[in-house]
Amino acid sequence: KRAREHGVKIGVLPTGKQNAITDVQGVLVGHTTLVQGSNIRTGVTSILPHGGNVFQNKVPAAVYVGNGFGKLAGTTQVQELGNLETPIILTNTLGVGTGINAVVSYTLQQPGNEQVQSVNAVVGETNDGFLNDIRGRHVKEEHVLEAIRQAKDGAVAEGNVGAGTGTVCFGFKGGIGTSSRKLPSSLGGYTVGVLVQSNFGGVLQIDGVPVGEELNQFSFKQQITEKADGSCMIVVATDAPVDARNLERMAKRAMMGLAKTGGIASNGSGDYVIAFSSNPDLRIPYTSDTKTQTVTLLRNDEMSPLFMAVIEATEEAIINSLFMAETTQGKEQRVVEALPVDKVLKLMKKHNALKQ
Amino acid sequence: KRAREHGVKIGVLPTGKQNAITDVQGVLVGHTTLVQGSNIRTGVTSILPHGGNVFQNKVPAAVYVGNGFGKLAGTTQVQELGNLETPIILTNTLGVGTGINAVVSYTLQQPGNEQVQSVNAVVGETNDGFLNDIRGRHVKEEHVLEAIRQAKDGAVAEGNVGAGTGTVCFGFKGGIGTSSRKLPSSLGGYTVGVLVQSNFGGVLQIDGVPVGEELNQFSFKQQITEKADGSCMIVVATDAPVDARNLERMAKRAMMGLAKTGGIASNGSGDYVIAFSSNPDLRIPYTSDTKTQTVTLLRNDEMSPLFMAVIEATEEAIINSLFMAETTQGKEQRVVEALPVDKVLKLMKKHNALKQ
Amino acid sequence: KRAREHGVKIGVLPTGKQNAITDVQGVLVGHTTLVQGSNIRTGVTSILPHGGNVFQNKVPAAVYVGNGFGKLAGTTQVQELGNLETPIILTNTLGVGTGINAVVSYTLQQPGNEQVQSVNAVVGETNDGFLNDIRGRHVKEEHVLEAIRQAKDGAVAEGNVGAGTGTVCFGFKGGIGTSSRKLPSSLGGYTVGVLVQSNFGGVLQIDGVPVGEELNQFSFKQQITEKADGSCMIVVATDAPVDARNLERMAKRAMMGLAKTGGIASNGSGDYVIAFSSNPDLRIPYTSDTKTQTVTLLRNDEMSPLFMAVIEATEEAIINSLFMAETTQGKEQRVVEALPVDKVLKLMKKHNALKQ
Amino acid sequence: KRAREHGVKIGVLPTGKQNAITDVQGVLVGHTTLVQGSNIRTGVTSILPHGGNVFQNKVPAAVYVGNGFGKLAGTTQVQELGNLETPIILTNTLGVGTGINAVVSYTLQQPGNEQVQSVNAVVGETNDGFLNDIRGRHVKEEHVLEAIRQAKDGAVAEGNVGAGTGTVCFGFKGGIGTSSRKLPSSLGGYTVGVLVQSNFGGVLQIDGVPVGEELNQFSFKQQITEKADGSCMIVVATDAPVDARNLERMAKRAMMGLAKTGGIASNGSGDYVIAFSSNPDLRIPYTSDTKTQTVTLLRNDEMSPLFMAVIEATEEAIINSLFMAETTQGKEQRVVEALPVDKVLKLMKKHNALKQ
Repeated sequence: KRAREHGVKIGVLPTGKQNAITDVQGVLVGHTTLVQGSNIRTGVTSILPHGGNVFQNKVPAAVYVGNGFGKLAGTTQVQELGNLETPIILTNTLGVGTGINAVVSYTLQQPGNEQVQSVNAVVGETNDGFLNDIRGRHVKEEHVLEAIRQAKDGAVAEGNVGAGTGTVCFGFKGGIGTSSRKLPSSLGGYTVGVLVQSNFGGVLQIDGVPVGEELNQFSFKQQITEKADGSCMIVVATDAPVDARNLERMAKRAMMGLAKTGGIASNGSGDYVIAFSSNPDLRIPYTSDTKTQTVTLLRNDEMSPLFMAVIEATEEAIINSLFMAETTQGKEQRVVEALPVDKVLKLMKKHNALKQ
Repeated sequence: KRAREHGVKIGVLPTGKQNAITDVQGVLVGHTTLVQGSNIRTGVTSILPHGGNVFQNKVPAAVYVGNGFGKLAGTTQVQELGNLETPIILTNTLGVGTGINAVVSYTLQQPGNEQVQSVNAVVGETNDGFLNDIRGRHVKEEHVLEAIRQAKDGAVAEGNVGAGTGTVCFGFKGGIGTSSRKLPSSLGGYTVGVLVQSNFGGVLQIDGVPVGEELNQFSFKQQITEKADGSCMIVVATDAPVDARNLERMAKRAMMGLAKTGGIASNGSGDYVIAFSSNPDLRIPYTSDTKTQTVTLLRNDEMSPLFMAVIEATEEAIINSLFMAETTQGKEQRVVEALPVDKVLKLMKKHNALKQ
Repeated sequence: KRAREHGVKIGVLPTGKQNAITDVQGVLVGHTTLVQGSNIRTGVTSILPHGGNVFQNKVPAAVYVGNGFGKLAGTTQVQELGNLETPIILTNTLGVGTGINAVVSYTLQQPGNEQVQSVNAVVGETNDGFLNDIRGRHVKEEHVLEAIRQAKDGAVAEGNVGAGTGTVCFGFKGGIGTSSRKLPSSLGGYTVGVLVQSNFGGVLQIDGVPVGEELNQFSFKQQITEKADGSCMIVVATDAPVDARNLERMAKRAMMGLAKTGGIASNGSGDYVIAFSSNPDLRIPYTSDTKTQTVTLLRNDEMSPLFMAVIEATEEAIINSLFMAETTQGKEQRVVEALPVDKVLKLMKKHNALKQ
Repeated sequence: KRAREHGVKIGVLPTGKQNAITDVQGVLVGHTTLVQGSNIRTGVTSILPHGGNVFQNKVPAAVYVGNGFGKLAGTTQVQELGNLETPIILTNTLGVGTGINAVVSYTLQQPGNEQVQSVNAVVGETNDGFLNDIRGRHVKEEHVLEAIRQAKDGAVAEGNVGAGTGTVCFGFKGGIGTSSRKLPSSLGGYTVGVLVQSNFGGVLQIDGVPVGEELNQFSFKQQITEKADGSCMIVVATDAPVDARNLERMAKRAMMGLAKTGGIASNGSGDYVIAFSSNPDLRIPYTSDTKTQTVTLLRNDEMSPLFMAVIEATEEAIINSLFMAETTQGKEQRVVEALPVDKVLKLMKKHNALKQ
């Protein structure tokens, strides 16, 4: 069960219908999960800003680098041009090259793209090498293409799926998590959805409760130091009519949501936020008969509720990734335990933090 | 009493001796508090990286912009050259020009600076215009110079002092707050100190306890929207031997500490972090007989504990600013109440969040 | 006479009517020149994006930092919010505080701004301390206000005026220079105007001709090293409908124009570009009844001709500052010679670079 | 023959021995050139900061984005950590994924890297799709590995080789070019080397001579607009002891060198500069017994001559790429002519710009 079903209710804003990134109209999510033999625990997750030809109808987008120990491809073009022209792919650290190749293949082959010679693939990663034989490089182009094909709206699978198959978060099994917020109509009525691939450390807090401390499991407790110690990929979607500049500001707030879970953006963390608007009126056509485009955009003054929505949805998405992940045995028979939900709920109760 | 004296113990790392930015060797803090008549509630706070001639012996420094709706002067030179050459001044929004003029006067007049023709004054601000007649521009050069002269080590006055005299935080009286962390020697033994001028909103959490929700006082609750709605200036000091690049990374983490108090970095917020190293071996002489400088610097791999220290000390500094501030009546007889400490402590107890 | 009147024709695009920043509809320029006694050689230049209340009707804007050894105030808010809310003021390095104070005074006093409590003054500078008694701090608020009051359209005074009164460029007397480009209607028909305060070094080239080498006067020639060795402030205006993101891209190109004059953006240079669009349809009202604003913006694909226009106009503005400046005696009886125009024209002819 | 052999002498600083990036001690360059059938005109160029295990002995590095319409992989980690841990690979736009995969393979297989699970491949590109069947994606991992294996010091092949096989510059055949500068010992005696993959447009100038105008061939002349219209990858190497912050400043100056050739960094250009120091004393060991590293670094004040060296060497490297490239027929029987050297030299003479 997801956190909220247990009575863990993060924040003050209401969620969308699915409490998922797919609550943002048009957004689709797909997973390819690779669990093979005792050593392969990895996968691919795709996030599509809309179901059409994204290259021909780009969306406003931004990237914010929380901590850049990571290999996210495609950042500089998104930042320069303010748009996203491919699905977003999440996978493992050594799978980025293959992820790019697959996105290029996908884009070149889409009807209408026969003349396209340049593709800015946005491919992020975290390092699942603790559980997964990452050096074996088991993610293939077909897995990426499959994750794109599988993409759909509605409920999103969480935990040990797709790019979250082998990740570890706060010492527990992490993975994919998602959440959303819907602003009241007085604040615009917009939806914000977040999806994370959680793979980082710190001192776990769940809705403010110091779970990491209570369970005596947190960073620097045992001086475990790992190189390249994880990462968190965060995708933020909204239907609000915001341009690249304000999307970048929204992206920055996702790191504040991560902070509330106890994350510290450690030196070895690759913490990136990709934000886009799926608002249909803001689509940027690849070619156009006119030199200009007319758009209706939110004023700066209206951004604060969206910022709050990003923070809340990011926090809850990370917590969902923990609640939904399952104990996993992987490479070298290493086992990473799931969050001990019963114990955690007792702690939440002790701290008067369950709402029913 | 400060938060910790009430049993509010934020984080897992130990504090320094004073639990103040002045625990970082060499750092000095001074305040000029302006409370005059019914309308003037403002002031100046100075933070000196060391007690010598800062222009002649610059310190490595960085600035991170959390949200740039603010007027912090001096950012681009700090970012370009990686150093700080003046005291840091905090005051109100319309006092920045005067702050700069005062810092220039101070620097030109220091012995040894007789030939100096260029001064990069670092002057930050938040907007105290709710309680203070800010348009009256009551901060004068002499007040700034006085704050520099008053700068001292040891305990730091908090709450309604200096630049915090008229500020408002989470709907309560805010102000100056400070805190520090001392890493265990296995993690390097370094000290990190933080000082804040708190003047922002959101949904207050104290050590994870949802105080804002429980007291039913938070942003968007009543749809109060104010232009230029506050800000938070954050100064981070350390004695760790870190260069400008890693200081910028530390500065970024301060916003994660702010996030944990429930801040959202709203559109109208001017949230800036200035970080510097007071490590004596890293001083950058204005003039030098040699073309090079030899420095011993922390490796990237050792930064994570410092990041955690910044997050914890920032969170606690903000909470201290609330615990130490007092109910204030100001402009147009507006009253901003202090944090209702008794009520808050009861809530903390209800949530099992007091440690004794 | 200006460079073009001598047959020096930089670039391939046509100029606007005045070949000045004021060719951009609505833009006004004013100067206060301070030449007093033997030591005071300084001043103030103002650039107004339009003649109305700029605070109430902000313009899209961006700042690019070419080299940040400078004190430009107001950068972070322009970058965050993407707009400019005051006149742009240029003056000397130690006059920035006073510049800010004056802009705040000006803004608070404008009709309609009675409730304004926050003003982001954009005040740039270069260091005229070689000719001017800069430590005497002779620029007063009234001089700044006078430069704003004097602002007008039409031809712009160049050379030893306003903020250019005491500046030095490539070892010759520099100062204020301006130029413009008007795109052919097939490329949109937009105008780009540039104004510079030139005060930097390198190896002077005039329309490609190696004048610095030929005259045997250039950086590192004599190993003259000065601390804080000058700067170049560049203001770029356009009537093209471009948002802050594309204005930042235009701003970046101004440094490419500077490069073509032989500038090197030396360590001590404060090279900043402020770009704004004066397009009336893009004005950003301070307050609004609606949450959104509808704007018609140029597509990314149409930006390249504007980039070329910025490069050409910047190059020519700098060269104009040299052609129009006059030999000046200042502080400590130092003399900086004007560009030896006759010699230069001979060189230009020798290199077949005059077009008539 | 290279430009200088024809008497085209750009700048005032002396070149290194080879006038190539390999003049910087330790730097190696390799090419794989793919010319197959009538349609394949592409390749790979590798630049190694030193001949050892770069992952185990990283070098200080920085990336500057001149214009981000490009796919350069690895930027954010270089910027965050300030170092480079792999060879730099240049290839075509759709080959970046394969380039990453090859660099990962190369790094995982190097002796000593048996435990490595994270590799930040730095792979840049320009779009050679005018002459090359880029959609065919003919660059394979083996070609990349071959370019790494071929890397050597000494003279560097230029023009139609490696990643420059199919590129176009100012409407002429472009390609690989290189140049270097050696500072006089009074300025430190350091070497700066630059290598470019030239594939961009504008209004060609050669050492200031308006060749593009004279030949009547330049951007917007014929209103040819192409999507994704080229790019310039620039690699800057130095043996000067400079850290990542000052390397970024050097990288920025490369765009000033590009500007002097008449480049405009058009909307569709992917202009990136990667700068690193090969100074042996600044190597950053992957693992270390100590928490700190002692380094001797150039002071900011000494950077200006290095800036000038970057500008000059970049300009000359681009011009060399034009002088050394040869007329090429490629995809769809398109022909791109080489720079008409005889005509150009006549023009240079006409403008009195040849030095002998």
